Amino acid sequence: MNGAQSLIRTLVDAGVDVCFSNPGTSEMHFVAALDTVPEMRGVLALFEGVVTGAADGYARIAGKPAATLLHLGPGLGNGLANLHNARRAHTPIVNVIGDHATYHKKYDAPLESDIEPVAGSLRGWIRRSGSTADVGADAAAAVAASQAPPGRVATLILPADISWGDGGVAVPPIPPRVPHAVADTTVKSIAEVLRTGEPVALLVGGPACREPGLRAISRIATATGAKPFVETFPARLERGAGLPAIERLGYFAEQVTEQLQGVRHVILAGTKAPVSFFAYPGKPSDLVPEGAQAHTLAELDQDVVGALEALAEEVAPGTEPVLQQPHRPDLPTGPLTAQNWVDVIGALLPEGAIVSDEANTSGVRLPAATAGAPRHDLLTLTGGAIGQGLPVATGAAIAAPDRPVVALQSDGSALYTISALWTMARENLNVTTVLLNNRAYAILRLELLRVGAEGSGPKAMELLDLSRPDMDFVKIAEGMGVPASRATTAEELAEQFRRALAEAGPHLIDAAVPSLL
Amino acid sequence: MNGAQSLIRTLVDAGVDVCFSNPGTSEMHFVAALDTVPEMRGVLALFEGVVTGAADGYARIAGKPAATLLHLGPGLGNGLANLHNARRAHTPIVNVIGDHATYHKKYDAPLESDIEPVAGSLRGWIRRSGSTADVGADAAAAVAASQAPPGRVATLILPADISWGDGGVAVPPIPPRVPHAVADTTVKSIAEVLRTGEPVALLVGGPACREPGLRAISRIATATGAKPFVETFPARLERGAGLPAIERLGYFAEQVTEQLQGVRHVILAGTKAPVSFFAYPGKPSDLVPEGAQAHTLAELDQDVVGALEALAEEVAPGTEPVLQQPHRPDLPTGPLTAQNWVDVIGALLPEGAIVSDEANTSGVRLPAATAGAPRHDLLTLTGGAIGQGLPVATGAAIAAPDRPVVALQSDGSALYTISALWTMARENLNVTTVLLNNRAYAILRLELLRVGAEGSGPKAMELLDLSRPDMDFVKIAEGMGVPASRATTAEELAEQFRRALAEAGPHLIDAAVPSLL
Repeated sequence: MNGAQSLIRTLVDAGVDVCFSNPGTSEMHFVAALDTVPEMRGVLALFEGVVTGAADGYARIAGKPAATLLHLGPGLGNGLANLHNARRAHTPIVNVIGDHATYHKKYDAPLESDIEPVAGSLRGWIRRSGSTADVGADAAAAVAASQAPPGRVATLILPADISWGDGGVAVPPIPPRVPHAVADTTVKSIAEVLRTGEPVALLVGGPACREPGLRAISRIATATGAKPFVETFPARLERGAGLPAIERLGYFAEQVTEQLQGVRHVILAGTKAPVSFFAYPGKPSDLVPEGAQAHTLAELDQDVVGALEALAEEVAPGTEPVLQQPHRPDLPTGPLTAQNWVDVIGALLPEGAIVSDEANTSGVRLPAATAGAPRHDLLTLTGGAIGQGLPVATGAAIAAPDRPVVALQSDGSALYTISALWTMARENLNVTTVLLNNRAYAILRLELLRVGAEGSGPKAMELLDLSRPDMDFVKIAEGMGVPASRATTAEELAEQFRRALAEAGPHLIDAAVPSLL
Repeated sequence: MNGAQSLIRTLVDAGVDVCFSNPGTSEMHFVAALDTVPEMRGVLALFEGVVTGAADGYARIAGKPAATLLHLGPGLGNGLANLHNARRAHTPIVNVIGDHATYHKKYDAPLESDIEPVAGSLRGWIRRSGSTADVGADAAAAVAASQAPPGRVATLILPADISWGDGGVAVPPIPPRVPHAVADTTVKSIAEVLRTGEPVALLVGGPACREPGLRAISRIATATGAKPFVETFPARLERGAGLPAIERLGYFAEQVTEQLQGVRHVILAGTKAPVSFFAYPGKPSDLVPEGAQAHTLAELDQDVVGALEALAEEVAPGTEPVLQQPHRPDLPTGPLTAQNWVDVIGALLPEGAIVSDEANTSGVRLPAATAGAPRHDLLTLTGGAIGQGLPVATGAAIAAPDRPVVALQSDGSALYTISALWTMARENLNVTTVLLNNRAYAILRLELLRVGAEGSGPKAMELLDLSRPDMDFVKIAEGMGVPASRATTAEELAEQFRRALAEAGPHLIDAAVPSLL
């Protein structure tokens, strides 16, 4: 058994049986080893940002890591933005990076590159395999590290000669670490805060964004009057009819300020105190209202849901959560607008859908329109590095082949990782992409106003304009093997969305929505 | 004058007047400042790998740096692969990266990311502007650092508040450092090596790949019998009729071994001793033949061309260089083959063309077919990080709007930075892309064989296959605003290539070439 074979066998034994791959020469023994471990599925992507984003989307849905296969420092660089998003989502990923053979590095061949400092920027776990005999143990450690609460990117660097060398040993999985329970005294002291009668906001994130956590939050809020919020960009938020509908904290500081207006206490569970996404001249970065106190019920690496349930038992015994009633918008008509496209999605979103949302400014009205749709999972742009939506949808569809995946994708951010469409076609994934084509970096037009940039004029506006030339996403999608159509009215969008959902495999709808600015 | 304005004014005063940009919110004051400095041209790209690759291609042709504009760590990550290629090309780039406001960083907002360690992997120059008053001086230092021989990526990190703050000061350019002359004694000792009568190879790179260096090499070789070679992947190689035709060192170790067979001395000027691109089991990494000695005439940061000219005066006074005679292949006919497509290019390549070559295995016969074509510049994949060809062509076309640019691009590597086509359309660049579509990562099929990977079977082959689904580059290009056509025969390719060159603006030809494997 060579090193690569021991690596793949160990991963599979630990439950990691999908590897999103964009290999090069130094990874050829890993590629060859796929044929010797039939349980491992290799999924090819044509760009590393698709590899890493798909691994993120996969784990958010599968609840276990996928592996990646990247080619030296440049391959890691190309995958870094979506690994950044995965880091912020606390997604477990086993990030395998091939490197030159150990004895070859000193020659400084053209692809020689520093891998550790780049991977180190992810603040996760890193190991470089030093001998073929250790690769299995390294792989088992990487899986365990990736899954240790709250989850992280575990990077395993695999030199080519370590990979091709003989003497690999498959190693059994390391039992996963479980999150530590929150102390009773902490739960009780938070209960005291809730009993003061002062205005309280309860802000949750991470694992609390799924049904058990949401039910606990709803009970606490109902019994105490605390205002509950979900963090701005949850990795995976369960929502829709039959689940408590918890409002997300806004993206813009002004929204958050309004949401937290008058609050004297902010209770945090599985997330950090709210801060502005960006800094703006003369505006605060820290969004905890002045004079309010932040209290932490549970850190992300603790048992967040258990703590919320304990708190609910403490302050809301016998109280039931308030569940969202089924409600869908009527199917709208007429040319597409910022409102009616979200109504189409809300009206037609199928049961059990997974929604990958990178609609950005086009999607500001989406939460309301889909609140009462059938139960679905929402995957969001956790780290703010755009180009995540299509890869995350790809990975989610691999994780849940029987569930419909809907990618809501803006034009500006689509181009970073557009070749995800090709992988969707290759793997015949049930992903319906609605491409919100407003022909602009609309969010940046807004930000240009918000930052109060002086002197801005036609050259600045031109740098935020995507209409010269217009992109034809029907052609781009078809060019990558994904059937596509164009919608300019709500009726067309509804008809095409319905049809795409009814047919197996990927589809793209190029939806001509107006820019808000 | 705010910080951003002082930055752009300082860059322009130092001759840096093109900024390839993919901005985000933290760069909005920079974007706004473009309107206050009319001499600076902002060129928008939809992905940072296009930004950095275009800056590389620009500087290779313009002989001076462009600036980039990137968005925090994820933007740098996306741009890293082509910055790696630029590093290996010794291309001067002023790499501007926006960051959060200084006071905002401690809040660890979602896009907070380590920039320095990632940029540090480029082994260039890095500075983080610490105050608005210093931004101008930082910019001048960055330009000087980027241009100090032999050229490098100079990264300037610009926090948002430093950018928007008042009190910026434009700073005059720092006079460029010139390369140090090589000592006479070194030239004379190398001349002694050439006079031994023992077999000598003369391997040159960097600035020696342009006319003056090539003429000196040809004279030395003619007079002494030394075998002259150009490094495998020159940043910019001048070639064609009227110039000395110097063979490039091969990509595969076996080729180099054959080229250097019997050599007792390898003289190096502006490049390092040859090493294998990758390591292979049981094959050497160091390609200097056993028993041969390497001698350095000139390091890359020295006056390489001056040293070669001095050496030529020493060993070849009065000897004229041997110049390539004009010669073109006949226009071929029939279905496209690995040979006839290069003959079409050789037959029709226009005078003064700039060729960006990322044809990879499809292009192995290209050098011979274009050797006697009219004089042209060849830009190659210096760092081995694929996805460079289209961005480099984009930047070269910005640098030389009156010259025809030909991008020879393989399918596998095209998808990494495919949105370069959109920037070509937006800027109406005279780039003709010939997309060699062999429906495979053909080079990896070859490498899979070469590394002797055991156990490889259908799963491995599938990971190197790009035919499921086939990509339709006509549609992809048209979707991004570039007129496109498909060629399956040599006649079609010739007709389409001629027409594309005759019309202004970008074109793409999807050429169905066979895979070598």
